[in-house]
Amino acid sequence: MRTIDWDDEKEVVKLIDQTLLPVAYKIVECSRLDELIDAIRRLKVRGAPALGVAGAFGVVLACMQVRNEPELEAELEKLRKARPTAINLSYGVNRALQAAMRGRTPQEMRNYALEEAKRLAEEDIAVNRKIGEYGSELLDDGDVVLTHCNAGRLACVDWGTALGVIRTAIGQGKMIKVIACETRPLNQGSRLTAWELLQDKIPVTLITDSMCAVVMREGKVNKVLVGADRVVKEGVFNKIGTYMHAVVAKAHKIPFYVAAPLSSFDTKRSCKEVEIEERSPEELIFSGEKQIAPLDVRVYNPAFDFTPFELIEAIITEKGVVRPDIHA
Amino acid sequence: MRTIDWDDEKEVVKLIDQTLLPVAYKIVECSRLDELIDAIRRLKVRGAPALGVAGAFGVVLACMQVRNEPELEAELEKLRKARPTAINLSYGVNRALQAAMRGRTPQEMRNYALEEAKRLAEEDIAVNRKIGEYGSELLDDGDVVLTHCNAGRLACVDWGTALGVIRTAIGQGKMIKVIACETRPLNQGSRLTAWELLQDKIPVTLITDSMCAVVMREGKVNKVLVGADRVVKEGVFNKIGTYMHAVVAKAHKIPFYVAAPLSSFDTKRSCKEVEIEERSPEELIFSGEKQIAPLDVRVYNPAFDFTPFELIEAIITEKGVVRPDIHA
Repeated sequence: MRTIDWDDEKEVVKLIDQTLLPVAYKIVECSRLDELIDAIRRLKVRGAPALGVAGAFGVVLACMQVRNEPELEAELEKLRKARPTAINLSYGVNRALQAAMRGRTPQEMRNYALEEAKRLAEEDIAVNRKIGEYGSELLDDGDVVLTHCNAGRLACVDWGTALGVIRTAIGQGKMIKVIACETRPLNQGSRLTAWELLQDKIPVTLITDSMCAVVMREGKVNKVLVGADRVVKEGVFNKIGTYMHAVVAKAHKIPFYVAAPLSSFDTKRSCKEVEIEERSPEELIFSGEKQIAPLDVRVYNPAFDFTPFELIEAIITEKGVVRPDIHA
Repeated sequence: MRTIDWDDEKEVVKLIDQTLLPVAYKIVECSRLDELIDAIRRLKVRGAPALGVAGAFGVVLACMQVRNEPELEAELEKLRKARPTAINLSYGVNRALQAAMRGRTPQEMRNYALEEAKRLAEEDIAVNRKIGEYGSELLDDGDVVLTHCNAGRLACVDWGTALGVIRTAIGQGKMIKVIACETRPLNQGSRLTAWELLQDKIPVTLITDSMCAVVMREGKVNKVLVGADRVVKEGVFNKIGTYMHAVVAKAHKIPFYVAAPLSSFDTKRSCKEVEIEERSPEELIFSGEKQIAPLDVRVYNPAFDFTPFELIEAIITEKGVVRPDIHA
């Protein structure tokens, strides 16, 4: 099934519980907004494009629960703030809300929101396919692509942004291999990217994030390709570690690409205005149930970082490949 | 107690089981060489200087078990190869073996080996103190030092190399804070460095390895200081991730220092001649008992990497601070 979807019969949001992969594949159903917000906070659903669709479906749930507009707005503000860094969550909420506003009754509002949310989900797939087409022109037969975190179908409704580009290139007959960085502290690379690539029989090798420099020096990598949570005036916000990979790629003269839908663009905003979510110290102190650091150690745990355009060769969007002005 | 020591009453090697820290502090006793080799392979004792002393004590155990010289040599070859990258293990074995050779009976050989092993342990502490003195001149009051893996007292008999420098600087009244990188895949930074610094009430903040670039750009780090497993003609072998930190430090104009005893120097050898230990894929697929990646994913898991002198500002030894010729 899709990463996230609407169940017309049950009137619930269905999503693949990404916290359980790769050990278990389980579908979670959210019939209430607070369940969906909880799923977002716990990263049962994550990835900027998927969060956009989650936001839109959240509006549908909200319309069915509230009694008036101020209540609706209050609920949606909680939803938008469930995760602050990716712009898509707010984008999805706002699109479905705008559609809902055409309705005169709660039922009508809910119907308009649902129609828009479903449209957004379809668009997401179409957009990823276009990103795949444009991006695949940058990949050559025989390339080994290093990626970080998960910008695959699990980060979207289907297909994926960065991994979608790889899927499209492989579909064109190119032989592409992937090096997946495990992506500490939550191991989206090990748990999700490795899993979804193996499902598709795409060759993937798992490394620790700290091995990036060695594999680049050893000539084991030709290109770096990642997703984005938000593109601003001066560069790109993405999963913590992205900036490190970009610095190391530059030092080894390896091109660094970002694949992102235009819905992740927020280019009127400066990097200084974006809140970087800082997550719980427990993510570094525990691994599952197992304690791996002293309980009283101080931890710095930003979930995202900022990579300036200077380090980015090109951004792949559904409208084409954008080369930041800086390279002009 | 010391990280590794000899128990005269029980005639065993005692060591702190580093695989259990920080959750449990337990002393392991090895009365037979195969137990010690197993402890080395499982990283119950690790760190180049501590491995040197372990190697020397291993000779003592071997002398008590074998019937003749060829048997002794065969046992010691197993010991030397328990971990191939750090030079100190062979160095410690060879020093104690040379001493043992002065003996005419197994008992005499054992006694000479023990005397030499104990001398090596005392030397290690003295050497670390000297490294601390020389290295502390490079640290300024107010510095925040980023370190990787554990080059502390748990990597040595006591005091530590990189962390020993920090201890000495703090002893001189300088205010020094540490950023410890967790050091995937085995988390020596989280489990050991964070633990031993907290024991000494030295301020430490834990980050994932992939946050190195962000903390450097944000001005949260003034210096990088790590240990070494082997210093060769062109640079330094150390825990995987070290090269990445060196590349990123260079890009942010942050000096990168290595602290290493001369017993880790093997400068007649080229980097191409050194075997980099590749460890089990399970280190990335499991975290403790918990599965965090697909069981069938391909894994690349070198335990060490090579950092060329070009990226190293200076190496701190017990004889003084060496600036690689490259900077001349």
